[in-house]
Amino acid sequence: MTDGPLDPAQLAGQGDMDVEAFRRAAHEVADLMADYLATVEDRPVLPDVAPGDIRVNLPATAPSGPEPLGRILADYRAFIEPNITHWQHPGFLAYFPSTASGPGILGEMLMSTLVANAMLWRTSPAATELEEVTVGWLREALGLPAPFDGLFTDTASTSSLAALAAARQLATGDAAAAGLYGAPLRIYASAEAHSSIEKAGMILGLGRAGVRRIAVDDAYAMDPAALEAAIAEDRATGIRPAAIVATVGTTGSNAIDPVDVLADIAAREGVWLHVDAAYAGVVALLPDHRAPFAGWERADSIVVNPHKWLFTPLDCSLLLSRRLTVLREALSLVPEYLRTTDQAAVHDYNEYQPQLGRRFRALKIWFVMRYFGLDGLRSRIAQHLEQAAIFAGWVDAEPDAERLAPVPFATVCFRWHPRGMDDDVFLDRLNQQLMEQLNGTGEVFISHTRLRGRFTLRVALGNLRTEPRHLERFWALVRELGPAVAAESA
Amino acid sequence: MTDGPLDPAQLAGQGDMDVEAFRRAAHEVADLMADYLATVEDRPVLPDVAPGDIRVNLPATAPSGPEPLGRILADYRAFIEPNITHWQHPGFLAYFPSTASGPGILGEMLMSTLVANAMLWRTSPAATELEEVTVGWLREALGLPAPFDGLFTDTASTSSLAALAAARQLATGDAAAAGLYGAPLRIYASAEAHSSIEKAGMILGLGRAGVRRIAVDDAYAMDPAALEAAIAEDRATGIRPAAIVATVGTTGSNAIDPVDVLADIAAREGVWLHVDAAYAGVVALLPDHRAPFAGWERADSIVVNPHKWLFTPLDCSLLLSRRLTVLREALSLVPEYLRTTDQAAVHDYNEYQPQLGRRFRALKIWFVMRYFGLDGLRSRIAQHLEQAAIFAGWVDAEPDAERLAPVPFATVCFRWHPRGMDDDVFLDRLNQQLMEQLNGTGEVFISHTRLRGRFTLRVALGNLRTEPRHLERFWALVRELGPAVAAESA
Repeated sequence: MTDGPLDPAQLAGQGDMDVEAFRRAAHEVADLMADYLATVEDRPVLPDVAPGDIRVNLPATAPSGPEPLGRILADYRAFIEPNITHWQHPGFLAYFPSTASGPGILGEMLMSTLVANAMLWRTSPAATELEEVTVGWLREALGLPAPFDGLFTDTASTSSLAALAAARQLATGDAAAAGLYGAPLRIYASAEAHSSIEKAGMILGLGRAGVRRIAVDDAYAMDPAALEAAIAEDRATGIRPAAIVATVGTTGSNAIDPVDVLADIAAREGVWLHVDAAYAGVVALLPDHRAPFAGWERADSIVVNPHKWLFTPLDCSLLLSRRLTVLREALSLVPEYLRTTDQAAVHDYNEYQPQLGRRFRALKIWFVMRYFGLDGLRSRIAQHLEQAAIFAGWVDAEPDAERLAPVPFATVCFRWHPRGMDDDVFLDRLNQQLMEQLNGTGEVFISHTRLRGRFTLRVALGNLRTEPRHLERFWALVRELGPAVAAESA
Repeated sequence: MTDGPLDPAQLAGQGDMDVEAFRRAAHEVADLMADYLATVEDRPVLPDVAPGDIRVNLPATAPSGPEPLGRILADYRAFIEPNITHWQHPGFLAYFPSTASGPGILGEMLMSTLVANAMLWRTSPAATELEEVTVGWLREALGLPAPFDGLFTDTASTSSLAALAAARQLATGDAAAAGLYGAPLRIYASAEAHSSIEKAGMILGLGRAGVRRIAVDDAYAMDPAALEAAIAEDRATGIRPAAIVATVGTTGSNAIDPVDVLADIAAREGVWLHVDAAYAGVVALLPDHRAPFAGWERADSIVVNPHKWLFTPLDCSLLLSRRLTVLREALSLVPEYLRTTDQAAVHDYNEYQPQLGRRFRALKIWFVMRYFGLDGLRSRIAQHLEQAAIFAGWVDAEPDAERLAPVPFATVCFRWHPRGMDDDVFLDRLNQQLMEQLNGTGEVFISHTRLRGRFTLRVALGNLRTEPRHLERFWALVRELGPAVAAESA
């Protein structure tokens, strides 16, 4: 140790990549990005690889010395780009869509450069205030009243976890301080609710047993009478109801739980109402399509994911609540090293979520909302709703296909069902094989679910790149491969 | 609904930004990014704004129509870029560093474009296998044996939450299924452990009361005798020990809990040992600097954050465990719509973390590790250790300054302490004012903690852009402002 100056020869010249070298590299990568988007349609949506195929081409040990960027980018093009599942492909119709639009990607580029951690106002004032603004934009555009406010988390898993932590806090008095002991708690969700609700129950200490699945009706929506009976039964055995989760647009079939009725029950029972509209929530941007959401303005919390159907790159989930103070009670800790003098006047968003560190997600949603404008977002969502309606019409008109659920939003559930061949075991096998063959074409990728036990093909619209011709091609493939697979299976 | 083809005039032309327009925009943004990095040093590290100053310049309602990208980028430059806290500034010495290096940013650009969700192998084979490879690279480079394996989560908060969920699972038999009832559980962590540990306790249902803070010694390291006494006392009152959290490099002062001794206790008591090395863990990349980590190879889980001191853009946290099957038992749910035929042969990484959706973080760490090479990473980390040692020497040689903790890694805790002025209340006020004045210069940003109740200035090295001249300038400012503030305060 020395009191003298540092020796620059010893310690300097070890920093980051030279900034002009970075500039050249960023331009090179910008072209790679545009080339990728320009050609993504020419690639097979699902790469033709078996587990382990990619890893064998990659060195098992990290390099000791630096490698030239050109070699890294060449390896990226050789080993990575061809071997991802192409979520940006227009034929990606699986799960729920998650398109990264151009403006969203531009926002991500800047976020990654600023790398501003939006945990405290102090650690990035513009990130915090832009989050306040864009959360307000979305809240208003969704038709929700001002008492709702919120933040962007990474995923719906986290948004629902935070919301249900608040529900637990309210139900127990103070689980955050004292822990979760005493009479068991229960969260109620439909049999079709997303796994993230059950996972929240596991994490929060209620266990899978703490999430009671409520029966659904013919349209896969929660049966309120069954919910009331379950709550009454639980109360009679000393179990404490903590939350009702209403899903608007289930993952399986886009079913709509009757939010308004569930809000009545939640009010009567004094429990938290959480609305999971992670996929379908953006439909409320269209004022004449708000009927499915009736009552959600009475919810305690709502999740809507811009990274699903609002063209924002993963990750970005909007958590809104009328009771942010309860979220804060459930999740806030402010150790000395995070104390600032601003805290009375600002949002320190880390206090409302499980994680301390937070990316500056508001920037990309700001780019997306301004570039497209609300009307542009609405017309694209309307187009996807229309695509789904048209596709459902094709299924309905095809004597050898069967639609398996209503289509209130943009996900169509169906199966190939040759006339007169009504054995479910046979149809399950047929449709599993049909899905594998469809996905094997490389032109499309769909995923499945089970509805009333039946193997169900799902076509989830909402991908910004899916044009009418892609949907037509998909349907042509179904009509070509369906009979062939049926003949083989018979 | 119609059986005919879709009407392209009605439904097309509503997709994403034109790809050639995106290409031009990406080039424009690439220049913005490089310009930012080239000029970040000329900006005040902390923006000179009060709460609300930024928001007032931003429209409260989203635009209906589309806005030209040029206007969005102009607003970005006018309202956002000047008003963030500049984590990339060489004078950023607060909290822990989180530098986004050039290669890390390039990796983020490509991640955002591919937007591959790494939740299942199926949803992005290359993302999953590159994660297997890069986790292995880091595991080996950190000197940890092969039974350790793991994944990248977003933050240490999430990594520790997942690890402690596994600890809870083991302690209870099956909290994931049955919930957390019966005898209270306890997690043990030092008085200096990070708030994320206590927050994990809150979320997991143990409550803040479920995290018992153990006294520390003169070097702020956990006192093993106090831990043993606490465990014995808890067992005697029917409380079940679930986990010991050892911190290597605490947030306050970089203190090092005696991992080897704690591993003995954990083994004897049959409880999970989690090592929080979120900041300092990367020092183990230097084989001759592994003494502080002795015993961590006996831990059940370890967290090290590449987004702190490994030059990887936020977010990227490495969670390693010798017992991934327990994490999976604690956190896995595989509903029908996520089932694939690959599952026996692959990692589906969502099963080991709270969230379902996952960004392709392995890509940026692959870029960083290859671009710098292990030796390049080591020499940069060694340089930061050396910077800290030199800075500590300056403090020690200054009669009017006082170092407040050992410097085992690269964070220096000190206060201005004019000779003969030994009143702690006075010194607290002085140093708080000194910090505000230092931060008010715009040249530097430091944060504080309290050690034994004393207001403590923290200088956290590890920022890739901090050169010797920045540290010299910081010290000159301390020596200039320290006496001035002392004179005012006296």
